[in-house]
This record gives sequence, C-alpha cells and structure tokens, in this order.
Amino acid sequence: MCAGPAAELGITLAVLAEAPDAAAAQVVRSAPVGDYTDVETVLAFARDCDVVTFDHEHVPGPVLTALADAGIALHPSPAALRFAQDKVAMRERLTDLGLPCPRWRAATSAEDVESFGAEVGWPVIAKVPVGGYDGKGVSVISGAAEVADWLARGPVLLEEKVAFTRELAVLLARSPSGQAAAWPVVETVQQDGICTEVIAPAPRLDPGLAAAATAAGLRIAGELGVTGVLAVEIFETADGFVINELAMRPHNSGHWSMDGAVTGQFEQHLRAVLDLPLGAPHPHGRVTVMANVLGGDYPELYPAYRHILARDPGVKVHLYGKDVRPGRKIGHVNVVARDLADARARARHAADYLAGVITE
Amino acid sequence: MCAGPAAELGITLAVLAEAPDAAAAQVVRSAPVGDYTDVETVLAFARDCDVVTFDHEHVPGPVLTALADAGIALHPSPAALRFAQDKVAMRERLTDLGLPCPRWRAATSAEDVESFGAEVGWPVIAKVPVGGYDGKGVSVISGAAEVADWLARGPVLLEEKVAFTRELAVLLARSPSGQAAAWPVVETVQQDGICTEVIAPAPRLDPGLAAAATAAGLRIAGELGVTGVLAVEIFETADGFVINELAMRPHNSGHWSMDGAVTGQFEQHLRAVLDLPLGAPHPHGRVTVMANVLGGDYPELYPAYRHILARDPGVKVHLYGKDVRPGRKIGHVNVVARDLADARARARHAADYLAGVITE
Repeated sequence: MCAGPAAELGITLAVLAEAPDAAAAQVVRSAPVGDYTDVETVLAFARDCDVVTFDHEHVPGPVLTALADAGIALHPSPAALRFAQDKVAMRERLTDLGLPCPRWRAATSAEDVESFGAEVGWPVIAKVPVGGYDGKGVSVISGAAEVADWLARGPVLLEEKVAFTRELAVLLARSPSGQAAAWPVVETVQQDGICTEVIAPAPRLDPGLAAAATAAGLRIAGELGVTGVLAVEIFETADGFVINELAMRPHNSGHWSMDGAVTGQFEQHLRAVLDLPLGAPHPHGRVTVMANVLGGDYPELYPAYRHILARDPGVKVHLYGKDVRPGRKIGHVNVVARDLADARARARHAADYLAGVITE
Repeated sequence: MCAGPAAELGITLAVLAEAPDAAAAQVVRSAPVGDYTDVETVLAFARDCDVVTFDHEHVPGPVLTALADAGIALHPSPAALRFAQDKVAMRERLTDLGLPCPRWRAATSAEDVESFGAEVGWPVIAKVPVGGYDGKGVSVISGAAEVADWLARGPVLLEEKVAFTRELAVLLARSPSGQAAAWPVVETVQQDGICTEVIAPAPRLDPGLAAAATAAGLRIAGELGVTGVLAVEIFETADGFVINELAMRPHNSGHWSMDGAVTGQFEQHLRAVLDLPLGAPHPHGRVTVMANVLGGDYPELYPAYRHILARDPGVKVHLYGKDVRPGRKIGHVNVVARDLADARARARHAADYLAGVITE
C-alpha cells in the first residue's frame, strides 16, 4: 500500500518478498524473493537501499542488529522496535514513563499467575510477550493451568481485564528529525480479537480525552525514539484510558486515512522514514469509516467486487492481492461521508458483501 | 499515475515502455521495452493483456488496426480514437452533431487559406491535423505564406480565432457498457499554449453553461463511442462556448482529481476501460487547484522538493520521475482548500518553487 504514494512522491521502492506472488511483489518493480529471517539475505537486499523499513514487527533481533552494525539506516530503529516486539519491555517502559497501563506482571511461574489473579481478580489476560498477532498469543484465563504450556517456554505477560467502554487508537508519524503529526483519534471496533471497523474520528469522544490520548502517543513516540508510523491502541474507560498495545508501522487503524485524510498513513510512513517533512493529517470529510474485508469461503472475489463498485460509486475498495482464505484480511473499504450512520452502513455492507457474509 | 489506483483495485498493469528508465517503467512490475510504432512489438505485448489502453494519441493507425484484427480489446477503440488523432475528422464529426465549433476549414491550398482568412478575418488559427501536442503544430497566421510548409505535406485545419473569455474543460469517463460520469467543469489557465493551472470547479461558472458543456461532453462520448477518460477542451465566449480540442485519455485538466475527488481520473480510466462500474466524481473540498511543475534550468529537484513539503504540509506533490529539462512537464501539485485565492497562491508557489522560477 506504499506503492501508490511512493510513485507519486518519486520514491523508488524495493520489497524483500516472501514469494514471487506476494501481495507487495505484484505492485513493486524490484521485489527479490528472500527469507527475512536470514541475516545474509536481508543484508544483501538492504545494501542497495537508502532506508529500510518493515511491514511487520517479527524481523528477528539478530537480523536487525546485523543491519544496524552494517550502517544501514533502519526506521524504526531496533532500539525503538523492541518495544513493539516485546510486550513486557513495552509495559516496563510505559510504566516508567508514568503512562496509563492496565495492572500487569511478567509471570515466570504458576505461582506468579495465581498471585496476580488473586490480586487483580479473575479472569486475567495472558499474552505471549513476543510474536503474537491479531489475537493469536492472547488468552483470557482463570487459572495458571491454562498457560502452563506458555510458561514452559518463557515469561508470560499478565494484564488485568480492563472494563473498557470501547477501543480507540492514536495514530501518528514521527521522523528522525523529531517532527511528528497525529491523525484524529479513531474508534476501533473489534470482533473476536480482530479489528473489523474503524471510525475516524471516534464519535462523541471527549475533547479532553482525545487531547490526552494524542499527547500520550506523541510522548511515547518521542521517548522511545519511534520513526515512521506509530499506532497506540487504547482502552477507553469510565474515567480515562489505558494503553493496550503499540505497533510501529502503518496499522489497520489507519487505513481510513488512505481515502479520508490529506495525507494517508502509507505516504506519511514513507515521508517519515526518509526524514522528509510530514504531510497534513487533516480529514477530508466529517467522518470516514473503514471496514476490513475478511476472506469468505469462496475463492472468487470478482463478481462481488463488481457488484460493490456498481452499488455504491462512493465506496473505495482496496484489495491486497492475497488468496482468499476464511477469516484472512484480504482488503478493506473506506467510505467518507457527512453522516456517521450512513458511512457505517455503507462500509459494513460493502465489506460483508465482499466477504460473502451477505448476498444482497 | 495509474499504478497507485491499480494496486488498490487489485488490477495488474503492464506497460510497453519506450526505455528501461521511462517514468511508467519505474513503478510497474511488468514494463517490457519496445517501440509502440512497431506492429509486431505491440501485438506481442498486447496478447498477454485483457485490455489495452494508451497514454497518448500517437499510436499509428496500422498498429491499432492490427491489434483490433487480432481480437484484442482496445479502449478507446480505433474508431473513437481517430477523432482525437485527426483534428479535421473531429471538426467534421462535431459539426455533423450540431455541437458548437469555431468556424473552420480543411485547407489544401494557399487559395483555401486566403479565402478562409478573408471570410472570418485575420489572424486565423492553423493546425496540423495529426500529431500536434502542447502547442506544437499550432500557429496563429495572417496569410497563406506562413503555412506553405505544412500545406506541402497535406491539409491544414484552419479555425477562426475565437474571442474567448477563458478556457474550460469537461472531463468525463465512459465505459464500454455506456455508463458515464463527469467531473465538475474546470477552468484551465494557459500560458504560451501550455496549461499551467487548473481550477476545479471553474470559479463563478454559470450553472446553465456548466450543464450545457457537460451535456456536450457526454453526447460526444456517446456518439463517438469513447471508452475511458475523455477531455473536451472548450472556449467560454460572451454568449456560450465552442469546443476546442478532444483528448481520449487521462488529461492534464483532470490531475486535480487525484487528490481532489472521490475518484481520480486514473482510477476512473482503469475502471472504464475494464468495464468496471465507475466511481463517484464528487470533489472532496470546495476548490482544488492543480499547478503544473515545469522543468527549470537546474537538474536537481530534491532540495526544492524537501522545501515545499516542509513549507506547506497540505500541498500534494506528484513527480513523474522524468529528467528535468526546461519547460518539460515533470510533475504537478494539488491543493484542496475552502478558499480559491488561498488554494491558488499555495499551488502556484509550490509549482514555481519546484520549477526554480522563485527561490523563496
């Protein structure tokens, strides 16, 4: 999704692709195939780049270290990226900064788990500190036995189950020079641990809370030395907010900006990692709704795609060129409108139709 | 400029490039190099495509015929494209349709020229019917001697010099199924025969004139069987309008739509030529100003580019990846705003700074 903005800005992209038919490889001229966990492969690729960035957080530490040692410009830096890779390191750091977190503990034994549960009340949230994604590696538990497997492999992050009213996200970009720009705070609607819908800006959000959450995001970006896009997922609570997760890359909660803001997140990420001046994050319309398209149990998207384009000329359809598999995020739609209910209904319909959940 | 929208829509592009470093070849995965005037080259390229379209009107007739004979889907079709390639054919057809044209004549002799000038009054506009571009092949003449060279090579199109108040353009797209969608009528500001600025929508345009011009554009598209984007350049006069030129491709007068409309012209062209349903042409803001960036007499654009991004985070910069040559269109900028004077000043400044015309 960086390909379009890169072409417009005159930036040349190269992608280290996992396979010749990888989604990004279909739209970028230079897309050598290679294993991103192999130091030599990534080094050889990176030597031809002015700046290297990542589309997920799972690049192994030794690869990052080797790139940094070779003098390659990495954004975000390994030092910053660590806080998006390791949830325990993130909790320690945010707690040190005095930023609002759920009560948490890095448990290394069944006793740790039992005592934390007794302290904050069951159930609690258990997370594998490294490697989770879209609800994987996260579990709601009511006793230590449920995470015995995880504990055998290393520390488990425990967090109190926050009584939140809804989920929000602060999305911003920061450049190596320290310039930062934040988009309006959005509401992220989750189902079974997967974001299904994003509403920008978050409806009826208290301006004080929006300002405090944005300030927290900007502070995290500065203190952690984040470069590129940072997404801070937060829980809105009865009396404020707590921070849930960090992601240091263009993020699902920012897809709305591709059609809904003067500068979309993929353009902004490129500008940030290249240390170009950042673009204006202002929205185009009163409200933008993004709905994720999840793969259905039919492989052929084309008839549904045609139908959706015909039914609603104002819906913006983004398809990722991925094979359709049930539950996989294969695209998203954006609707910019004056009215929230209208935007939501249209985006929801388009996404559900493309997913095959509805047929008319 | 189709590359970004194609990626988003899940459409795979291939480009027959004039050179390995051609602008389009830098951003499209499949960009074989070949001569678009060579029948075999174009045929071999086109056999792998579902649909073939063009980024200029100068593909020779025999190439088009060979493609059509081979059963390749061409949009626009050779039958429609002829009216954008041959200005005499265009005048004949528009006159037959009763659409407003300047008085005109296809002159084949000095006598024809002299009698036309005597009839409509000197000076008159002389045009080479086929192959002109950006003011080339167009001349303001006061006698037959000035076009003796052209006459020796074939007919010359003569047109009365219209006393116009300003230049406008109607931009629309039409699909093979006959669906059509028009953007708002724009004003095109010309200098020395080159468009320097486009204002969308055209300020203070009489709604009746806007409707009549749009209706004329839609009628031309339907009657001529145009598929893809059609630009109709028109002269606004004291009592209405006359049609100046036709272009059957995404056009400079539509670049504003890339940032200023729900559906930009490059996305719409792709949707049209693939016979996908068309997108909404509605503008995002009250006014969008596009200013062309012309190459200055320095070859290094980067410092100016950084400055412009920093100075105005709301300006959208589009660079074409072309070498900088004085007077060459190497990019454009778009500004969407509430206020016309503000948008115009900002777009003008950015374009002039990038061109090196101003230095602060």
